[in-house]
Amino acid sequence: MKQTVIDKIKHLKSLSGTHSPSIDTLLNECKELTIDVDACFLSNPYATELFMQNMEKDLISKGKLRDVLEYYPPQNRDIAKTISKAINVDSSNIFVGNGAIEIIQALIHNFVLKKICIIIPTFSSYYEFVKEGIEVVYYRLLKENDFELDAIKFVDFVNENNPDTVVIINPNNPNGGYLSKDNLVYILENLREVKNIIVDESFIHFAYEDLDLGQITSQDLIYNFPNLIIIKSMSKDFGIAGLRAGYAVLDATKVEILLKNGFLWNISGLSNYFFNVYSNPDFILKYNIVRKKYIMNTLMFLSELKHINNIKVYPSKANFALIEILSGQSSFDFTMDLLVNYGIYVRDCNDKIGLDGQFVRIASRTFEENLKIIEALKRIV
Amino acid sequence: MKQTVIDKIKHLKSLSGTHSPSIDTLLNECKELTIDVDACFLSNPYATELFMQNMEKDLISKGKLRDVLEYYPPQNRDIAKTISKAINVDSSNIFVGNGAIEIIQALIHNFVLKKICIIIPTFSSYYEFVKEGIEVVYYRLLKENDFELDAIKFVDFVNENNPDTVVIINPNNPNGGYLSKDNLVYILENLREVKNIIVDESFIHFAYEDLDLGQITSQDLIYNFPNLIIIKSMSKDFGIAGLRAGYAVLDATKVEILLKNGFLWNISGLSNYFFNVYSNPDFILKYNIVRKKYIMNTLMFLSELKHINNIKVYPSKANFALIEILSGQSSFDFTMDLLVNYGIYVRDCNDKIGLDGQFVRIASRTFEENLKIIEALKRIV
Repeated sequence: MKQTVIDKIKHLKSLSGTHSPSIDTLLNECKELTIDVDACFLSNPYATELFMQNMEKDLISKGKLRDVLEYYPPQNRDIAKTISKAINVDSSNIFVGNGAIEIIQALIHNFVLKKICIIIPTFSSYYEFVKEGIEVVYYRLLKENDFELDAIKFVDFVNENNPDTVVIINPNNPNGGYLSKDNLVYILENLREVKNIIVDESFIHFAYEDLDLGQITSQDLIYNFPNLIIIKSMSKDFGIAGLRAGYAVLDATKVEILLKNGFLWNISGLSNYFFNVYSNPDFILKYNIVRKKYIMNTLMFLSELKHINNIKVYPSKANFALIEILSGQSSFDFTMDLLVNYGIYVRDCNDKIGLDGQFVRIASRTFEENLKIIEALKRIV
Repeated sequence: MKQTVIDKIKHLKSLSGTHSPSIDTLLNECKELTIDVDACFLSNPYATELFMQNMEKDLISKGKLRDVLEYYPPQNRDIAKTISKAINVDSSNIFVGNGAIEIIQALIHNFVLKKICIIIPTFSSYYEFVKEGIEVVYYRLLKENDFELDAIKFVDFVNENNPDTVVIINPNNPNGGYLSKDNLVYILENLREVKNIIVDESFIHFAYEDLDLGQITSQDLIYNFPNLIIIKSMSKDFGIAGLRAGYAVLDATKVEILLKNGFLWNISGLSNYFFNVYSNPDFILKYNIVRKKYIMNTLMFLSELKHINNIKVYPSKANFALIEILSGQSSFDFTMDLLVNYGIYVRDCNDKIGLDGQFVRIASRTFEENLKIIEALKRIV
């Protein structure tokens, strides 16, 4: 059975480009497969639970789910007003997206004019969405420096290359490396001439600067740095990837350009409901409890991972870890072993540019699921 | 009270551009207002009911709603395969959209190179989304011809003007005029040199060519006419505008161009669930019953409308009617009268280019709601 499954997955993976096939697609196409833990999926399961409770209370039990599905949702600008209440940024500076991926597409297509600087390893859409004729320069994070971003060296590199757009994912995907707010401010202060500095904060709710685990964001910096564009996915921290919801915080003239010819009703009724919940301070109080619970979970998971022989765990302040396999096994065989024999789905990073070696990204899941992952890893390496 | 409400609505309308403010936005901003019948909203309420029953059975009662909201949905290409089963068109010819509006945006931005021909009156996004530097030529439907599209004259007009793109909405919005399949084929046969012929079939499930009321579509014609692009919204006929779901049927090379740098996860988990339901023949059997029920409803509604004095009802094979007010009252006053005094929300067409006179578009709703509309209209005109 094993080899047929592996062949099917190879085929599915080739069809999904540089992204993993979704669990839905995998299970539909490989009926032989059982996935016990989806550790490919970067999402807080406790937050999903919290949102489901809200939906049950507000929509399902009150018979109001139909309203959300039947009617046209409000337009982009109206939803920006709801988000404005949640994040204390003027609604004219908010562009709402059908997931962060739509925002990435919109920004790359509309504002990158000549040259974009991308830090690798990275989330592949940032370079895949670049239109023909645009130059891409890569700033490579080094394995020997634990893939940490050195703000001073990065500023020098950007100044030498003179791009119109720079992308920083913070914490970075796939390694989870975190750039402190002070370091980000240093970069912004020294790159005022760059037209667009995109900071993707899709994983920022999992990062922390002290043990209080307070929420970090750089959204407030847009008023000092008009070239700053913050992208915020809701999928990971709120556990609602199926909804498709995200937003960007950016200069109001850029919002106007995007809305001038499109993005009218790009948010579903259910995502609009989510943003209403998001702007409710009572929900955020409860959310912060499940956010912190999940961070503590992840900290424990990372600490356990570090005790496993033959793998190296790179520093992460996201909800996942990039590990390097030092046993001689390839990352593909390792991934298949985990999937077929233990039902654990992790992300093989062999298609990521800028990663030299055998790398796998493993998401932190519930406490119980993390234990299963640790047990399986101990057996196979 | 009346004047404050009217002023507020005027303001809201100015903010929503050439679209009506959603019922949600209206009710949130005008707490004094009660809307009893939303006849601005072009959607089959019986189909919404049917979809809700399916959701209840498949997702809610089985505790599977969470799966749909938590996980990443399949990618665009995978959902195209599901739709392929439903419509008997190869999946390589299908582009899936976050509502028809996203498809309109994608087509207009990617394939209109120099000149677009738009038939007016029309759905405003078709000209609003046109990028700077593109020429727009308007083909005007005439009131004296009941806004009917004459295929021979239209072909002559297009040939004289030589656009790269032509847009036909069938049935047309806002008047509901229907172009028969034979006439469409005549147009396609005579405009083989035009690069893109966009036929928006968002309302086609409400049209009929005989009393059997069979479903009409021109999707099969794409294999004979590679320049044909069919846009299909799911919002109206399936009553799920809040979900955001639509697709286009077009030449495979054009699908490739669109997917090459974007539209990766543009469909929510719930819309993906909808497309699964849509590809189930049992569901379509049930759907056709509610579709025909709604058409019969609409036929009765149109026939009743025609008996009201001082309004002219233009021919429609869609789920709405364009009416002209002949009493001397302006379309704005008429709309406000209906809204504030009768709680009936209809579409004032005074912002539609190509309409000379006082026009209002009224949607057909449930049997009971249609009766209320008829009663209110009889009183005010």
